[in-house]
Amino acid sequence: MIIRKNDNWFRMLFIWKGSVLPKILPRLLLLLVLSVAIVYFKGTFFDYKIPLNPAPFTIFGIALALFLGFRNNASYDRFWEARKIWGALLNDTRSMARQAITLTGYEKDSREIHVFIHYLTSFTYALKHQLRFTDAGPDLQKRLDPVLAEKINSAIYKPIMLMKVMAEWVQQARSAGKIDTILQAAFDTNLSNLSTIVGGCERIASTPIPYTYRVLLHRTVYIYCLLLPFGFVDSLGWFTPLIVVFIAYTFVALEAIADEIEDPFGLEDNDLALNAMCLMIETTLLEMAELPLPLQQRKTTGIID
Amino acid sequence: MIIRKNDNWFRMLFIWKGSVLPKILPRLLLLLVLSVAIVYFKGTFFDYKIPLNPAPFTIFGIALALFLGFRNNASYDRFWEARKIWGALLNDTRSMARQAITLTGYEKDSREIHVFIHYLTSFTYALKHQLRFTDAGPDLQKRLDPVLAEKINSAIYKPIMLMKVMAEWVQQARSAGKIDTILQAAFDTNLSNLSTIVGGCERIASTPIPYTYRVLLHRTVYIYCLLLPFGFVDSLGWFTPLIVVFIAYTFVALEAIADEIEDPFGLEDNDLALNAMCLMIETTLLEMAELPLPLQQRKTTGIID
Amino acid sequence: MIIRKNDNWFRMLFIWKGSVLPKILPRLLLLLVLSVAIVYFKGTFFDYKIPLNPAPFTIFGIALALFLGFRNNASYDRFWEARKIWGALLNDTRSMARQAITLTGYEKDSREIHVFIHYLTSFTYALKHQLRFTDAGPDLQKRLDPVLAEKINSAIYKPIMLMKVMAEWVQQARSAGKIDTILQAAFDTNLSNLSTIVGGCERIASTPIPYTYRVLLHRTVYIYCLLLPFGFVDSLGWFTPLIVVFIAYTFVALEAIADEIEDPFGLEDNDLALNAMCLMIETTLLEMAELPLPLQQRKTTGIID
Amino acid sequence: MIIRKNDNWFRMLFIWKGSVLPKILPRLLLLLVLSVAIVYFKGTFFDYKIPLNPAPFTIFGIALALFLGFRNNASYDRFWEARKIWGALLNDTRSMARQAITLTGYEKDSREIHVFIHYLTSFTYALKHQLRFTDAGPDLQKRLDPVLAEKINSAIYKPIMLMKVMAEWVQQARSAGKIDTILQAAFDTNLSNLSTIVGGCERIASTPIPYTYRVLLHRTVYIYCLLLPFGFVDSLGWFTPLIVVFIAYTFVALEAIADEIEDPFGLEDNDLALNAMCLMIETTLLEMAELPLPLQQRKTTGIID
Amino acid sequence: MIIRKNDNWFRMLFIWKGSVLPKILPRLLLLLVLSVAIVYFKGTFFDYKIPLNPAPFTIFGIALALFLGFRNNASYDRFWEARKIWGALLNDTRSMARQAITLTGYEKDSREIHVFIHYLTSFTYALKHQLRFTDAGPDLQKRLDPVLAEKINSAIYKPIMLMKVMAEWVQQARSAGKIDTILQAAFDTNLSNLSTIVGGCERIASTPIPYTYRVLLHRTVYIYCLLLPFGFVDSLGWFTPLIVVFIAYTFVALEAIADEIEDPFGLEDNDLALNAMCLMIETTLLEMAELPLPLQQRKTTGIID
Repeated sequence: MIIRKNDNWFRMLFIWKGSVLPKILPRLLLLLVLSVAIVYFKGTFFDYKIPLNPAPFTIFGIALALFLGFRNNASYDRFWEARKIWGALLNDTRSMARQAITLTGYEKDSREIHVFIHYLTSFTYALKHQLRFTDAGPDLQKRLDPVLAEKINSAIYKPIMLMKVMAEWVQQARSAGKIDTILQAAFDTNLSNLSTIVGGCERIASTPIPYTYRVLLHRTVYIYCLLLPFGFVDSLGWFTPLIVVFIAYTFVALEAIADEIEDPFGLEDNDLALNAMCLMIETTLLEMAELPLPLQQRKTTGIID
Repeated sequence: MIIRKNDNWFRMLFIWKGSVLPKILPRLLLLLVLSVAIVYFKGTFFDYKIPLNPAPFTIFGIALALFLGFRNNASYDRFWEARKIWGALLNDTRSMARQAITLTGYEKDSREIHVFIHYLTSFTYALKHQLRFTDAGPDLQKRLDPVLAEKINSAIYKPIMLMKVMAEWVQQARSAGKIDTILQAAFDTNLSNLSTIVGGCERIASTPIPYTYRVLLHRTVYIYCLLLPFGFVDSLGWFTPLIVVFIAYTFVALEAIADEIEDPFGLEDNDLALNAMCLMIETTLLEMAELPLPLQQRKTTGIID
Repeated sequence: MIIRKNDNWFRMLFIWKGSVLPKILPRLLLLLVLSVAIVYFKGTFFDYKIPLNPAPFTIFGIALALFLGFRNNASYDRFWEARKIWGALLNDTRSMARQAITLTGYEKDSREIHVFIHYLTSFTYALKHQLRFTDAGPDLQKRLDPVLAEKINSAIYKPIMLMKVMAEWVQQARSAGKIDTILQAAFDTNLSNLSTIVGGCERIASTPIPYTYRVLLHRTVYIYCLLLPFGFVDSLGWFTPLIVVFIAYTFVALEAIADEIEDPFGLEDNDLALNAMCLMIETTLLEMAELPLPLQQRKTTGIID
Repeated sequence: MIIRKNDNWFRMLFIWKGSVLPKILPRLLLLLVLSVAIVYFKGTFFDYKIPLNPAPFTIFGIALALFLGFRNNASYDRFWEARKIWGALLNDTRSMARQAITLTGYEKDSREIHVFIHYLTSFTYALKHQLRFTDAGPDLQKRLDPVLAEKINSAIYKPIMLMKVMAEWVQQARSAGKIDTILQAAFDTNLSNLSTIVGGCERIASTPIPYTYRVLLHRTVYIYCLLLPFGFVDSLGWFTPLIVVFIAYTFVALEAIADEIEDPFGLEDNDLALNAMCLMIETTLLEMAELPLPLQQRKTTGIID
Repeated sequence: MIIRKNDNWFRMLFIWKGSVLPKILPRLLLLLVLSVAIVYFKGTFFDYKIPLNPAPFTIFGIALALFLGFRNNASYDRFWEARKIWGALLNDTRSMARQAITLTGYEKDSREIHVFIHYLTSFTYALKHQLRFTDAGPDLQKRLDPVLAEKINSAIYKPIMLMKVMAEWVQQARSAGKIDTILQAAFDTNLSNLSTIVGGCERIASTPIPYTYRVLLHRTVYIYCLLLPFGFVDSLGWFTPLIVVFIAYTFVALEAIADEIEDPFGLEDNDLALNAMCLMIETTLLEMAELPLPLQQRKTTGIID
């Protein structure tokens, strides 16, 4: 995720880093070259003058707007829902930490409380690694008992196995007489919330926008941009390449951004900063348990991942 | 559901498999032939020149965009809501498995726990078969006691009867002193969630978008595309068929996709992968109960059902 | 509600039954006659040539699209919310039946359980009759004790009085020692859900879209269609009536459909099939209680009410 | 709120009462006079011909549609959310009445139950008076003990103080052994719902759509309408005033309606019928408690407030 | 937030304060000067006539409308969600005050109740200071025990530490026998709501709309406005600057407003009035506890922060 203070309106026009421009530049250059060629030949193709004018583009632009708008909203909704789910993870782990500290009969600085806090942070990291297809091993080993870390790491659905471990912790608390079944049920409600959080992330990660939509939109955008110079060569002359590339920039860029944030758990510039969120959750949980906090790294680039 | 890695932007323009093109090609070819004929006769019809120009198409395009946009959003919302309901099924069955394992007094590897896990997986398969109008018998027999499988399979609302069987399991756990009424109420909340899930699927499956909308939109799209060549024959000449077919492609394809995902439980390319989701739910539940996992089939085609 | 299998794309263009066309045909014919007259007189009116051209219609079409889109979305949202509420009724009655059967100490085939199941089905029918302003008497007498049926039928808010009767049934179950206060609270939560369902239906039924919106939209659509022939008479000649009626068809039909589904509890073609849903709820509840099922009527017309 | 049966499509075109036309007529007449003057002077202003044509209006119309659509949706959402909150008030007071009657050990026709029912109706009226800035005194005195009515009426947040009084009633029921803490918690959940309802109303009433939006939209609509005659005077001649006033009617009317329903608790024609809803809630609660019902007034005008 | 009574429609056209005009005036003046120069040189640039006409602007306007509409909706949704979260804070603190007063065995005017009320108000202020990056010290010291105020103020996540302090208060109430675990669980549910509220605010504050969107939209708006005079110079002549600045005003203003309300916790004119809301929450809580109310400041400017 890119974190920038609001720039001056003028300087914002010339930003390079954080714009999608670098990614789509080759395609725009290709279109530029093509447009120049079309203007040079005055829109004729082997002596056949392509008889296009701006009228069909207006009609077509409506369909395009329709498609891009839909795609864009659907992608942004996925991005924002993913963010909400990770926000719910923060809220829920804080609530469970509070419950462990104040609902049970354990001492505030007892080993049991510390173990439970580390279950919660391990859960967070395990979920991140599952979503990014990275190795959860090191993060689990740092926070869990070696035997348990090994067992969790060999599971297919690691966060779910950790959820079960937490439920067993609650069960033992009841066996030890630290809570009654009423408070066990209160813990259980929050464990179900964790289940909802994991399932929500898996849903977004495993179900993209129907592929056929993406193919259809992609084709419409590119064919539209390709035909544009023919439509404007007669009226705009040598100004055609500039205008065409400008229009194409907005359409192609919008599609590229929608593509990027559609899968919000990735590592691209505009994806969610899962690393930063994991660190933040760990910090707040450790602070609640009055344990030493992890070191905060200085972010230097304005991009957090 | 079609699962494909993001292709290169250029190669994506020429994808055949996963595009809706094969399905609508005959209609587009028909329109192509018609357009060529209209251009050949210069838009006259028995000596009467059809006096159309692009102006009415702009006005009309607004209505069309309105209709297509509405239809498309309504269909996608149904698709995504159906996906959310199946996600909730995953979350809820995981929560119930966790409750069975950690809230009751049963041993972790006792027969009772295993039976309950198989109730949950049977429930999932029964729901899938109800939504796809297929025979639930074999899947139930594999997972349930033969007598029970027979009884469930003869019911009209199979998942609901299984839900009742699970509630009876909970009732027996209370009779046996394994849980108290507080924990029984906690189970009951999740059983109510299962009820909501079944009802949600039935709602989407039984209530399509009002038929009148679909007729109206269908007619508007096809009459619009049919009239298009008359509007452009004078200004675009022999380029008319190409442009007309291109515009028609986007409109007709969008309507066809909306039609396909409107009923997301079917077996078409863009429908939900209920088989894969059933297998996934079974895998995670068996893993939680530390039972042997089912074999994962390699998907070879990029399309999962 | 109209239930039709997906027709062939070609045959769907000529469907009569289930289209809104029959309803709006007189208005369209009136417009057709008017258009023919306008073309015949070449758009002059007592020697004064009405100086209209397509330009203002484009501008105006934007406002029209805005209005129709808003009206249409608002109506469809009401339709779909009403469907969701009736879906919640199905889910909630199933949950309450399950609770009565498995949470209480009553025998599964005891009179108390059967009475409660009939309370639930009576509640469903009472709600339907309230929403359609029909007489609930016969349906109540078939399912309830005559004295109670009489008492409920004389109440203003019949479903609410039935909800209170169910709460009293729960209260008696507690007095009889069949449940404790924890399970009584679990029942009570579902009774509150029933309250929400009734209130949701009453809200949709009693609060239409603000009347001023409907007047404004209605006027805009009809005046727009009336002026259309003047705008196109010069450029389209004798083709004007055809195009005008086609454009008017889509606008007027969309308004008519929006009007129809705005009050989804009525008896028009596209309204919700409350009768079918009541029968379905009764069937599933009786199946859960292992009571004889009602006869399913064959639907012959493709329209269920 | 205006309650009218669906009129005939033709008669609906000439409705005066219930249309926003009377309110905006002076502005439209002003514009009419201006348009006539502009046509008379052929769009010249002190010998300088204003060189406007329809093209910029098309571009501008897009921005206008964008603004009006946003404003309109935001206003309608506020209206509908306010209606939902009052619907929740109905549901919640019915649930609390049911709880008082069937969860507690009080006799059905005891003084305690009647007092609680009157707390609920007083709460409803107190909320209405808070939202409309009217005097709650008489309505409170009719339903409450004089001392309590006095105390509530002198509070700043009257409904909240009544909510506290209800909570104290529940507390006394527990002290008197009529409920245990489980049922007290069930009551408490519904009291929290009342808190949410009051807060929701206060939110809508105290937070209008950001003022800057409204200023920007207002200016855009009026300047647009003012410039319209200059754009059409050349092509439409003496037909200009008619078309301009018609277009202006739809834009100005839409803005006026949005303005009216933005604050849905007021007393304008399209605002919510809070009086009717208070009476309806009182009727249903008294019916549940089998107390004499209030007299229903005949509505004669078709407008309920 | 700007609070103004509805002005007369005419006077509203000339409002300065509360309009976004002052902020964007320099940019509009720059564009005015540029437009005048372009008209003076008749759109030529070193003898090269820029060959632009209105057609491409129509096409482009669609993309622009799409972008602005999306940005605007996303920003307003953030604003309104933030308002909803603060509304939930009001509801939840009222509910917790009610619980402290009526669910526990403490006397209504005991020190424990007063301390808890001050925890709630401190929580509100601590959240406000966290969101505005201001010093929470003075507000905490006024309401809390000095030792505790010091401890909270040195924490990173102050509201969360206060939530833990409240949970400890509940724990002590149970140890002292003032509540049982059922009521402790009821308190705990509301503490989890507080956790959700804090997390929701942090989510909105820390996750802006993806930066790339903002850059893309910003560029499109400004380049569009810059090219506009070239497109209209031929047809509108000396009227061009006026029209161009008017169009630019609406686009640039809309983007500026969207930018302002995107971060609703700031101190700009249209941001949420967190100070007023904190004071309001404190007033209602103190009134419930029958403690002396804070002084209400007269707002004199119509802008509350």
